[in-house]
Amino acid sequence: MLTQKPPRRRYFDWAATAPPAAAEGIAAPAEAPFGNPSSPHREGALAREALEGARARCAAALGVPPGGIVFTSGGTEANALVIMAQALRPGRASTLYAASEHPSVRENCLLLQRLGRPVRALPVSPEGMLDRERLEDALTKKDDGHAAPRFLAVMAVNNETGVINEIPAIARLVRERASAPVHIHCDIVQAAGKVPITLSEWDVDSAALSAHKLGGPRGIGLLYLRKPLEPLYRGGGQEKGLRPGTENTAGALALAAVLEARVKNLRDADARARERFRHLISELKKMPRCALIPSCRAADDARFSPWILQAAFSGAPGEVLTRSLDEAGFAVSTGSACSSRSPERPVLEAMGVSEARRLEGIRISQGWTTTREDIDALLEALREALAFL
Amino acid sequence: MLTQKPPRRRYFDWAATAPPAAAEGIAAPAEAPFGNPSSPHREGALAREALEGARARCAAALGVPPGGIVFTSGGTEANALVIMAQALRPGRASTLYAASEHPSVRENCLLLQRLGRPVRALPVSPEGMLDRERLEDALTKKDDGHAAPRFLAVMAVNNETGVINEIPAIARLVRERASAPVHIHCDIVQAAGKVPITLSEWDVDSAALSAHKLGGPRGIGLLYLRKPLEPLYRGGGQEKGLRPGTENTAGALALAAVLEARVKNLRDADARARERFRHLISELKKMPRCALIPSCRAADDARFSPWILQAAFSGAPGEVLTRSLDEAGFAVSTGSACSSRSPERPVLEAMGVSEARRLEGIRISQGWTTTREDIDALLEALREALAFL
Repeated sequence: MLTQKPPRRRYFDWAATAPPAAAEGIAAPAEAPFGNPSSPHREGALAREALEGARARCAAALGVPPGGIVFTSGGTEANALVIMAQALRPGRASTLYAASEHPSVRENCLLLQRLGRPVRALPVSPEGMLDRERLEDALTKKDDGHAAPRFLAVMAVNNETGVINEIPAIARLVRERASAPVHIHCDIVQAAGKVPITLSEWDVDSAALSAHKLGGPRGIGLLYLRKPLEPLYRGGGQEKGLRPGTENTAGALALAAVLEARVKNLRDADARARERFRHLISELKKMPRCALIPSCRAADDARFSPWILQAAFSGAPGEVLTRSLDEAGFAVSTGSACSSRSPERPVLEAMGVSEARRLEGIRISQGWTTTREDIDALLEALREALAFL
Repeated sequence: MLTQKPPRRRYFDWAATAPPAAAEGIAAPAEAPFGNPSSPHREGALAREALEGARARCAAALGVPPGGIVFTSGGTEANALVIMAQALRPGRASTLYAASEHPSVRENCLLLQRLGRPVRALPVSPEGMLDRERLEDALTKKDDGHAAPRFLAVMAVNNETGVINEIPAIARLVRERASAPVHIHCDIVQAAGKVPITLSEWDVDSAALSAHKLGGPRGIGLLYLRKPLEPLYRGGGQEKGLRPGTENTAGALALAAVLEARVKNLRDADARARERFRHLISELKKMPRCALIPSCRAADDARFSPWILQAAFSGAPGEVLTRSLDEAGFAVSTGSACSSRSPERPVLEAMGVSEARRLEGIRISQGWTTTREDIDALLEALREALAFL
């Protein structure tokens, strides 16, 4: 019997999760001070010191005050925490979110609606960006029976297409046109440490990120909060009452380490990622059956993150192509891993992508260890797989 | 200059958190399959397999079906998840909780009340046990203007006194006397792996536990659910829609490892812990200024966990005594670490302990590496500290 050597794995699903960045000073949980940071003794004090050190390092990496960092179990929880807190705010003002948001934003906004709060999805352009004209309408038009907005959720980088929302311009528009203060929440899970962001200058009220997208462990993320809020989640009053549960000191230290490493290497990594994607996109555009989503995306398009790409191949269902590539040693995905339980593609649908095309969409996402050779191998594998589809 | 050797540390705050059980096969996060368990490729499948393996091992350790295990970020989240889900249940039936519950139960019940749901705290006896007569009243009396109960939160082992609630008897009472189905939720954070429990025979609808109390990492815990419920927390539909966010595979594996180890060694560990506490309590009872809380606690009292003890020393404020002991090398606490931000002691207050006595209370909690020598050293340190107070 012939034994076939399994193909070398090449990972193109960094938007779902990143391989662990083991070399970057991430200690095993058992190496962090083990005490409960809320305990009154020396073991507690050592853990508290480590936790606050991690907080200061995360804040510095993001350019915000340490007092604004709340550690959570991840990006989903950080998004849910700030959105569900709206259920406790008095009055009937409404919650807005971009139709292209991650399920952890969209689904919690819909839950808010279940609790009787007015909630509206804002349309996105065919490129997948929040439609600023429609945002302006939502902020200013009083005559359509909607309550005045007081909360807007808009993501920095879309997790399926890589499209970048111009958060500073959106924030300016909100500040200029809204009749009452609006809390702007920004999901930066696919942006932090990956594209240049200046949270300190963005004029947003909160932001959410996750360690595992940066090579850190699961179970840790953070919420940046400009001002405290009252969460719909209680317990022992940890994190200034903003997020209960014994603090994950080891996780916070690991998050600080990967965030620092990513931010420090960002300029270089960004340039190299752009170079690799320029090549990938140029080659994809030469393939007759390939259409990028959105189709306007150029080989070197500053409106998109150089880490995430959505493409469709005529006559090749995304699910089948994903499986073929997997067998050939390549990990790509159809959409978000967080949406993998549903065949629907709400992000692409919001962009006006046809149903047939949506079913052909695959997501290719690269990372800091991806090489030009990986890209070429992927292109070759795509051509081979398509020959059979 | 004389340099004084710092005293050897002896840790008596295991109820707040346990030192990491490094020798028990807990892999570093980077050693678990890194893929996103929801991803459609090989990396995802390997992670999914590991996650489901961890789930099956946790279920087996607890004697429940694997389908009932939902991984959470810890005990607090597991308690919050099941309690806050009550906000989405139709109708106006009420939520009951024992007045001695952990803040992660009590505070979320109070939040439910903020959302307009009827919520009632049930009194506990002077021993700290849920008062079964008052529970029966709450289940049966229709004429006091209260809505019929449909949810009861009652903890297995109290985190401040170690008192054990007789969950099987409580569950029988509920099943016999309630006019409508009541969801019984049991916080087993201080019970699982520490005292003999048979979750499979307890007739409870859900239970919450945390890895770090068992020597595992922070950021992972579980909720056992007999039947699915609709959570007030959404996202990518992970954990069958019961708990969103990319699954913490490494954490789940570590939780499985520590839970298995604790359950396997339980009989021996329990016997040895009882033996050490018998000695500690006998000696404490000889100290004229010492009063156990509750005072009825005997040296070998099966109504209490052999891991947690509450004691008060006349004329010695708990906070001062804790600090003195800390300086002498001993980590004890006043109350729960989760309540350390408040001087109030709601658990002791619910038991009818006087305010003066409450301020004198300290918690001594031991673990599986505690020795008889540690106990003797603590007794000696207590005598020395008290001589100055």
